[in-house]
Amino acid sequence: MTRQQRQALDELLRHGPLDVGGDIAEQRAIFHEMIASIPLPDDVSAKQDELGGVPVVIVETPNLDPSAAILYFHGGAYALGSAPDSVGLAADVARRVGARAISVDYRLAPEHPFPAAVDDAVAAYRALLGRGVPASRIAFVGESAGGGLAVAALVALKDAGLPQPASAAVFSPWADLTVSGASATGKAALDPALTPEALRTRARDYLGDRDPATPLASPILADLTGLPPLLIQVGSHEILLDDAVRLAAHAAWHDVAVELQVWPGVPHVFQSFAALLDDADHALTAAAAFIQRGLVADGPETEEATEESAA
Amino acid sequence: MTRQQRQALDELLRHGPLDVGGDIAEQRAIFHEMIASIPLPDDVSAKQDELGGVPVVIVETPNLDPSAAILYFHGGAYALGSAPDSVGLAADVARRVGARAISVDYRLAPEHPFPAAVDDAVAAYRALLGRGVPASRIAFVGESAGGGLAVAALVALKDAGLPQPASAAVFSPWADLTVSGASATGKAALDPALTPEALRTRARDYLGDRDPATPLASPILADLTGLPPLLIQVGSHEILLDDAVRLAAHAAWHDVAVELQVWPGVPHVFQSFAALLDDADHALTAAAAFIQRGLVADGPETEEATEESAA
Repeated sequence: MTRQQRQALDELLRHGPLDVGGDIAEQRAIFHEMIASIPLPDDVSAKQDELGGVPVVIVETPNLDPSAAILYFHGGAYALGSAPDSVGLAADVARRVGARAISVDYRLAPEHPFPAAVDDAVAAYRALLGRGVPASRIAFVGESAGGGLAVAALVALKDAGLPQPASAAVFSPWADLTVSGASATGKAALDPALTPEALRTRARDYLGDRDPATPLASPILADLTGLPPLLIQVGSHEILLDDAVRLAAHAAWHDVAVELQVWPGVPHVFQSFAALLDDADHALTAAAAFIQRGLVADGPETEEATEESAA
Repeated sequence: MTRQQRQALDELLRHGPLDVGGDIAEQRAIFHEMIASIPLPDDVSAKQDELGGVPVVIVETPNLDPSAAILYFHGGAYALGSAPDSVGLAADVARRVGARAISVDYRLAPEHPFPAAVDDAVAAYRALLGRGVPASRIAFVGESAGGGLAVAALVALKDAGLPQPASAAVFSPWADLTVSGASATGKAALDPALTPEALRTRARDYLGDRDPATPLASPILADLTGLPPLLIQVGSHEILLDDAVRLAAHAAWHDVAVELQVWPGVPHVFQSFAALLDDADHALTAAAAFIQRGLVADGPETEEATEESAA
């Protein structure tokens, strides 16, 4: 059953219209169309709002705990996607955790290059703290570029003197804008969604003349000391496999409680396809359990929280 | 609380008498003394037996499921330790899983160099299958050298034409006998238990004139395709951190369902110290849950089992 599911998804993506490295206006429209074609469950509420001057979408499902929040960062290689387009996956995470998700509509490249996205992430988080949600009741979640952005934002929080949230869970994070992992070429034939050329195109849009090794753009090169517990999920059929592995290795080196989960034979952000793929359902369940452990470990005993959440 | 626990354990190990790279006879006695000083719970039963001509110790705790078995591989750098000395940790795993552990008293170096340990592991597993325990009801568990041995044995099973067990959980595996990970030197000052020199001494004992890059001795260099779901736990204060990370990376590359859990600030096989350290308790709970998921996913649907266990 599962093997067939994986093959069906692979075919779907290979023959889909999205070309992440293609013309920006065209690909933004295709990205939006693809997402809009998936109906939202009736009980999901999505409301436009703003946090610290940054547009956000508040995503709610029934029976959530109002004291906690997921700060959600969508994917799209820093140039595509939007908070409204992220509602489906954000709602799926929110429902499983039992907390609302706040999807950050950070500014996109090339119109708004680095560090606009990081600045928006930090501004939204700072404003959320300002509204009285304690850091210990906030989890970061991000997918693809949003996964890299979530980790970059955690690093930026240190410089900004802001407390770390309870935890961060990232799905297929794009964490190396130099696109130099072995999987960038070694897994290219197996990856139905992304190519190294597409990522390099979008990295240039995001970075302009800046060095792609800039730590806040490529957090596998940042000092990750002091980050909260980190969950990294990735499929083995993606060119970003090594971004996940190297992010885990780098976080471990810096004494972060880190958990890496690799699902074999599935593509980039396979969690988006819970309707088609049992693996996606299992991964989201595991991610929600991880996030809940971090949110439970409340209060000033952050040291305790760290250790609970690694389990 | 936890920070103090970690510091206390670090002090204990730094001032302990064990020198893994020291004189074999002396260190075997010290290793045994250290273990023997920890009392076993009254309800643990340990019986000598043999499997395929290999001595084993059957470790049982109350209320276990007789249909399942954990094949357990002790640590000791291939030269120290024994199945009887492994009963405490094996029993702790067995109790949490609810299955008996069979600790393999594989032959030690330098008297019995590579591949004696791998041969014994395969022989014991083959005999366990011969006694009617299906592969899908067996989990491998190993710590330190026993973790590397467990993975090497999985690779050897492929050549032997034997089915893979349900899963394998390894704690601080020694998986690179070339001792060339960045952590071998980069984490040496933080590691209270092991030194790269000690490991190189024991690698020479185990390998004699053989290349330490031999895949069945250093499974980070083996073809891991077809292995069952793998859980790898490691502390960030150990020179073997990179063995765990590279094993996870290598397994992921080969489409294995792999989970890496890094606990910050704790030493080599910290799971042994559940009486002193909350982290150890949490890690063992997580390992037991992983093993149980693999054993539950029974039957011919091994593809399903693979994917269940990654969650």
